Amino acid sequence: MKQRKEQAAARESSPSQPIYFFGGDEVEGMTIGDREDRRGLLGGKGSGMTEMASITYKDPLTGQETSLPVPPGYTITTEQARLYFDNGKRLPEDLIEAIAEYQERLEKVTGKTLGDVDDPLLVSVRSGAAVSMPGMMDTILNLGLNHRTVEGLARQSGDRRFAWNCYLRFTEQFADIALGVKDETHLRPLRRAVLEARGAGDASELGLDDLEHLTWEYHHAVLQQTGKPFPQDVRDQLQTAIEAVFESSYSERAVFFRRVNKIPDTMVSAVSVVSMVFGTRGEDCATGVCFTRNPLTGENIVTGEYLTNAQGEDVVAGIRAGRPIEEMESVPDLGDAYRQLHAAQDALERHFRDAQDVEFTIEGGKLFILQTRDLGGRTGRAALNIVTDMVEEGFLSPEEAVLKYGDPNGLNELLQPAFDPEEEEKAREDGRLIATGIPASAGAATGEISISSEQAEILSRRGHDIILARHETSPEDVNGLHSALGVLTARGGVVSHAAIVARGMGKAAVVGAESVDIDEHRGLVRIGGETITPGEIISISGTTGEVFMGSMPVVPSPIKAKMAGEDADEDGERLYEKFRQLLGWAREHKGVQIRCNTESEEDLKVALALGAEGVGLARTEHYMFSPEERRTAFTALLLAQTPEEYQKALGSLRPIMEEGAETIFRLLEGKPATIRLFDPVPNEFLPRSEIETARVAGFMELAFEEVRHRSAAREETNPMLGHRGARLYVVAPEIVETQAGAILTAAARCLKEGIQVRPEIQIPMVINRAEILKISEAIHAAAHRTMEAEGVEIPYEVGVMVETPAAVRMADTFAGDLGFFSYGVNDLTQTVLAISRDDTGHFMPAYEEHGIVAADPFRSLDPIVATFVEEAYQKAREANPDIFIFASGDLGGDPHSVAAFHDMGLDGISAGPWLVPISTLSAAQANLRNPRKKA
Amino acid sequence: MKQRKEQAAARESSPSQPIYFFGGDEVEGMTIGDREDRRGLLGGKGSGMTEMASITYKDPLTGQETSLPVPPGYTITTEQARLYFDNGKRLPEDLIEAIAEYQERLEKVTGKTLGDVDDPLLVSVRSGAAVSMPGMMDTILNLGLNHRTVEGLARQSGDRRFAWNCYLRFTEQFADIALGVKDETHLRPLRRAVLEARGAGDASELGLDDLEHLTWEYHHAVLQQTGKPFPQDVRDQLQTAIEAVFESSYSERAVFFRRVNKIPDTMVSAVSVVSMVFGTRGEDCATGVCFTRNPLTGENIVTGEYLTNAQGEDVVAGIRAGRPIEEMESVPDLGDAYRQLHAAQDALERHFRDAQDVEFTIEGGKLFILQTRDLGGRTGRAALNIVTDMVEEGFLSPEEAVLKYGDPNGLNELLQPAFDPEEEEKAREDGRLIATGIPASAGAATGEISISSEQAEILSRRGHDIILARHETSPEDVNGLHSALGVLTARGGVVSHAAIVARGMGKAAVVGAESVDIDEHRGLVRIGGETITPGEIISISGTTGEVFMGSMPVVPSPIKAKMAGEDADEDGERLYEKFRQLLGWAREHKGVQIRCNTESEEDLKVALALGAEGVGLARTEHYMFSPEERRTAFTALLLAQTPEEYQKALGSLRPIMEEGAETIFRLLEGKPATIRLFDPVPNEFLPRSEIETARVAGFMELAFEEVRHRSAAREETNPMLGHRGARLYVVAPEIVETQAGAILTAAARCLKEGIQVRPEIQIPMVINRAEILKISEAIHAAAHRTMEAEGVEIPYEVGVMVETPAAVRMADTFAGDLGFFSYGVNDLTQTVLAISRDDTGHFMPAYEEHGIVAADPFRSLDPIVATFVEEAYQKAREANPDIFIFASGDLGGDPHSVAAFHDMGLDGISAGPWLVPISTLSAAQANLRNPRKKA
Repeated sequence: MKQRKEQAAARESSPSQPIYFFGGDEVEGMTIGDREDRRGLLGGKGSGMTEMASITYKDPLTGQETSLPVPPGYTITTEQARLYFDNGKRLPEDLIEAIAEYQERLEKVTGKTLGDVDDPLLVSVRSGAAVSMPGMMDTILNLGLNHRTVEGLARQSGDRRFAWNCYLRFTEQFADIALGVKDETHLRPLRRAVLEARGAGDASELGLDDLEHLTWEYHHAVLQQTGKPFPQDVRDQLQTAIEAVFESSYSERAVFFRRVNKIPDTMVSAVSVVSMVFGTRGEDCATGVCFTRNPLTGENIVTGEYLTNAQGEDVVAGIRAGRPIEEMESVPDLGDAYRQLHAAQDALERHFRDAQDVEFTIEGGKLFILQTRDLGGRTGRAALNIVTDMVEEGFLSPEEAVLKYGDPNGLNELLQPAFDPEEEEKAREDGRLIATGIPASAGAATGEISISSEQAEILSRRGHDIILARHETSPEDVNGLHSALGVLTARGGVVSHAAIVARGMGKAAVVGAESVDIDEHRGLVRIGGETITPGEIISISGTTGEVFMGSMPVVPSPIKAKMAGEDADEDGERLYEKFRQLLGWAREHKGVQIRCNTESEEDLKVALALGAEGVGLARTEHYMFSPEERRTAFTALLLAQTPEEYQKALGSLRPIMEEGAETIFRLLEGKPATIRLFDPVPNEFLPRSEIETARVAGFMELAFEEVRHRSAAREETNPMLGHRGARLYVVAPEIVETQAGAILTAAARCLKEGIQVRPEIQIPMVINRAEILKISEAIHAAAHRTMEAEGVEIPYEVGVMVETPAAVRMADTFAGDLGFFSYGVNDLTQTVLAISRDDTGHFMPAYEEHGIVAADPFRSLDPIVATFVEEAYQKAREANPDIFIFASGDLGGDPHSVAAFHDMGLDGISAGPWLVPISTLSAAQANLRNPRKKA
Repeated sequence: MKQRKEQAAARESSPSQPIYFFGGDEVEGMTIGDREDRRGLLGGKGSGMTEMASITYKDPLTGQETSLPVPPGYTITTEQARLYFDNGKRLPEDLIEAIAEYQERLEKVTGKTLGDVDDPLLVSVRSGAAVSMPGMMDTILNLGLNHRTVEGLARQSGDRRFAWNCYLRFTEQFADIALGVKDETHLRPLRRAVLEARGAGDASELGLDDLEHLTWEYHHAVLQQTGKPFPQDVRDQLQTAIEAVFESSYSERAVFFRRVNKIPDTMVSAVSVVSMVFGTRGEDCATGVCFTRNPLTGENIVTGEYLTNAQGEDVVAGIRAGRPIEEMESVPDLGDAYRQLHAAQDALERHFRDAQDVEFTIEGGKLFILQTRDLGGRTGRAALNIVTDMVEEGFLSPEEAVLKYGDPNGLNELLQPAFDPEEEEKAREDGRLIATGIPASAGAATGEISISSEQAEILSRRGHDIILARHETSPEDVNGLHSALGVLTARGGVVSHAAIVARGMGKAAVVGAESVDIDEHRGLVRIGGETITPGEIISISGTTGEVFMGSMPVVPSPIKAKMAGEDADEDGERLYEKFRQLLGWAREHKGVQIRCNTESEEDLKVALALGAEGVGLARTEHYMFSPEERRTAFTALLLAQTPEEYQKALGSLRPIMEEGAETIFRLLEGKPATIRLFDPVPNEFLPRSEIETARVAGFMELAFEEVRHRSAAREETNPMLGHRGARLYVVAPEIVETQAGAILTAAARCLKEGIQVRPEIQIPMVINRAEILKISEAIHAAAHRTMEAEGVEIPYEVGVMVETPAAVRMADTFAGDLGFFSYGVNDLTQTVLAISRDDTGHFMPAYEEHGIVAADPFRSLDPIVATFVEEAYQKAREANPDIFIFASGDLGGDPHSVAAFHDMGLDGISAGPWLVPISTLSAAQANLRNPRKKA
């Protein structure tokens, strides 16, 4: 009595009906709110079937607008599943009645009856939760078979082996899932015995007798284990199966999956009961998969495969080779269904507003769509073609195209050369793959291996194609990197020097290939046992991280060619047009300013062509590595101790500083340019040889011994945390005075020619306000002097780089003094996590594997680091609503990070030149999902 | 009319009287609240005079209880100063009336009248704000002189030169401060002309004529500059001077001082008008300074100097040599005053409850106390004697003694040897001081210089006294450091390796002596031009940072001797007793637990003898540097890649781990022991030579080439941010399993013998909860296995070291999983500020000089780092009220940092063994000032 009352109470609190029907002309579930609400109540499977069943299309056979043909069925809601558990794991009485009612409706629509010995209705009982948990919960197929109906199925299909195979499979699943007679412990041994006796690999190779025999053995095992015979009452089977699928919500693996993926444990499964259709009942039956567009090229041509008289898994498992889908049109018994399928595909695309991957079965010439989903695995090029075509075809808006493009990283593929995919596959098969490292800069390159940057430069000048292979690179290798087509390193991660520079230059890079041992003394490279001498040809893919022996054909990027002013073939021209079109749409919606990092004139030209709206980070110290005289003077600057020594070095460097700034201003034509004051890692500039020491001594007019002593004293244990950035200027304000003076003198020169300028002078590595004020004072003084001297007003701003936790903490104290700041996200990540980006190789893979970090924090914004970005943003914005806040560094090209920066409210993002399109598209996607409040 | 109304309103809002009198039997100001309130209203000078005047003593001449003799005067309040400014810089009418009234009272008490031509009253008009701003605001002396009174003063004093000198000085000050005729531009040139004509250095060398002449010239300049004659009306002088002193609250230097020291700009000056007394009117006049106790030894013997017929500045400036104060007793005209002074000193000590530094003047045989302040410049030993004696004398409580001890760093002096101060001074005069570095560990040492740790070890074993001189030290130098009496390095700061180790060992250290160039190749040391060869004797003072050529007599610490079980002389015995007494009082009040860092058995014994209540940080990796076999196995552990390689290295190291832990448990006898899991800097353990590489290869049974390759791959760019701490355990959980197993096995062994243990296993360098859980799991598993195997329950805790900003941010997420955590304050400082403690030498001095940091953040807790300590504390405490939170690292011995940790609510502090007393006293002082809520 008490129990009945509770049931009633539970029912009252449940507002919706317990079961929803789909199929034929009866689709009930579409009355439930929006797509998300439906998923919540009907689970993934149930809501998918419901939505498919609700789609109408013009049937080419009748010319009528009619529902898409899906196997009819009904879904028991997740609410009922919860009631089941609340009810002490019993199906509520009302639900049992409702199931009977809906089962009857299903039988009416299909014209078949569960348990009918002549033509039995078979159903699948399927799980499906609101959140996708693939393979975590159970599904039972072919329910409705027993000793008598199996013979009916045999007669009806004319294929007794097929019928018994179905029965065998059903028995296996039902025993395991619904009766607790585990396959692993109780059924598999029986199966193995029969297979071994027959020398067969699996049940598909067994004859009819064996299938029958094995089925009986299973039934016997069930009797032994449970004390009861295998249920022959098909209504009992149905109820038990429904209960079992409910139960699978709390299977060990489902609970574990939810815990790992932080899904609440209240997320239980709905149950869909779906009529079975078979592609195996003769020559008018078939099964197949088709893609509405080509996933490799994106062309609007249906591709796919089908098999006559086969089940779906035969196609997927490749047991039998499929036929190209287009051939189906001319097969007499299948032609009509093919025409229906073609029409259905269009309807599906228009309904889901995206290319689809469709599973279908034809039973007795009649088409059933079993499942559809957004086309996966598309290449960057395919994605571009699909979304732009769909806009042209008129059923996607440009905004939708931006969102539907998917992963913005796909754009990078379009900009870089690639290996011919077939040749690449062949090389793998031929055993030419000799090492795999971290893919650090997309693209492909083939050339002679060289282990010295100097050598690489010389050979490249002589026309050789070079792959530079180094233990790791340092800024001294910049010229070598420029000369090479790609770079391979033994050490370092995605933000190691080699990786950053290569991405900036748009060259292929494979880094951290630990099996590569570069023996510079002996001039040899050892890769996984093989010894390679310089001059031998290797090929590297910065997209996959693979290293191959020998050469490999490279397919250039037509877009890159067009950008360089070269011609492309018709296909290339079209791709270029579409690339520009998509980027244009993205630009309209990106919400934040996209700027570029730059280290050279070429960089900046590329970035502007790709749509950069200014310079977000000019690393001025990177201009100082070469040529030799420049480097010598810069080293002298770092070793200077007296005012005279500083002045000498600065005097020599000043023309270079002016020239560098002027180049930027001229190219930008009034766009903002954040120019960072020198932030060298001193270790990288100290003399490496006696010759260099002597050169510096000559420049400084000091004794060799004195320069040697100063260099030793300047070498740092942890250069990342050393005497850098702002610290240089506090010790020697003349540096910042000269550099700010040089930048603003260049600005004045442009202004006088009528070229607009917006210089933003940035102080790196700051920790507190007192430091910032001291350095800004020097900048303002230099600005004042320059404007006096040049007789022109220069609209400049002063800002900082926020890259220490200290600066984050104090952001409210200095925001009011500044026009802008940017995050130095790499350095902030290094300090917040206390992880040197150059030293992650040994432990980061383990951290990713154990889920301690979701991703390498130098590849994608770490959530803890994000809280620091947020802290500084909130503090600074409150203190100064007008301050311009943006992110720079390497994560500006990572879609996840760009979205995070956008969503926090940042005003802009700066990315490497070749990453500007990714950054733009990522920002637009984020902004369309979650529009930025502040314009 | 309007103005009058405003004045009235302003007066109404002012609750207190405008002026307060002091001197004679009339002291008004003591009615104002407490000492702070008085300071706020009367300023430092006014409140000091008021308080002194309020003290009574038994006059030895009369036997009467009477007020201390101070020059009478009155103070115009800071409220009036504010009214002056609110009133448009005019003295309110009421105030003018009140001044006249108080001036009359002053004349009555002194028996002299301002402007009296026969015996003029002279006054000083003095500034004084609530917060001490020494020298920032103005004071005018000898006011009341004009053309006529100067002659009266001459007659009255019988010294015309004295009178004109007073008039000259008054004219100078009044013109400069009150009339705006600046000394620098208008008076000094006149003065210089006269001085040059006479070949005199300053005015004290001029004759009477010149003084008169110069005074007239000044007056002429005033007339020229202001258009008015120098004021002859003494009442006008007084009013103008009062206004000028008010105005000096906003002088440029006062405003700047307040800005720098973050003092609000509303902090204006009060004005005290004080009658002048002169020690220059004959043989019954004198002036002097005396200390109530000896500042060097603390003995309760009055010391000081006096001069007959002199002014105070003569004593201070040392123009004339003073006589010992005790001689004054027998001077006929001064004996009575001396006896009064003696009695007054006692009264002052008892009133202020501290030893005093007293300035006095005797005029006509009559004593005036001009100023008193707590005795400054006392040595650590003097402070100890003073406060313990005062407790014995019955007028200080032990709590007051703890507070009055002053800077706890003084205790370190008591524990370390020192140079004989006279010899040290002589050596400086003789030019033997050849370099100055950073004083990094107190103490003094003299011995042969050695530039190699191996050499140092050998020579020390042969009985030589060694000073180890290195460019910088690394953990490989530990044995060398052990062998040496002191260490000198060219590089590094107060938390460099050499500094930390030396402090831990209680040895003298001078680090970062940049003029020291150690040429290891040539085996030479160059110091400031001199070349020294190993074997030559030098002396270093870790207290001052000075380096001397040659030997120097060293005075050992009697306390250290007693602790080592040796005898001391009577004086030493007494000092030892007092040291123990003070520490005992401090322990009763410290509020927090004081633990010690330890790296050896000796360390721990010292720390326990000094009162450590447990181990706060056992750096287990530091046990692994030597001997050779141990180091080899540890290197093998860091280079291991396969489970077998890990097991081999761990197997070899496990007995050492067990033994180390067991030693700690046995010594602690149940006190808590935080044992940190290995946190090596890998670079420090990699093979440095082919021999070491071969040795490791032999141990690992690997090819030499393979070990070379792995070592190169393991070398890190920023080892501070590298593959350390927790990162080692995520990659190889077997390390933590073995180490936790070893620690707990040792614990089990002790327990079985009836020795209580409280092991706390600490995970270093963590960043988030997932990482902590993964490693804790391994610890718990090891604990479980150990307890099973040993058959004993071990009460262990698991905790972490919070030393990354990430761990701070996430502290609430993991606090509930842990029993304790400690801050690794050094590493937290490194990451928050992005400053490597090994690399501060080149810029930290500039940062301190420019006030960007108040102090080297590795010497004293940085305020920004403090916010991170606070953040983690608040988050963790809220999530887990029972978690034990303490600070470890080098700042545990810094009084300021200890106070900050105490005040934040931390439960404990861990300090280097020799620093435990400082830490204890610092905590007690903090806790007495601001008692800790949680017991």
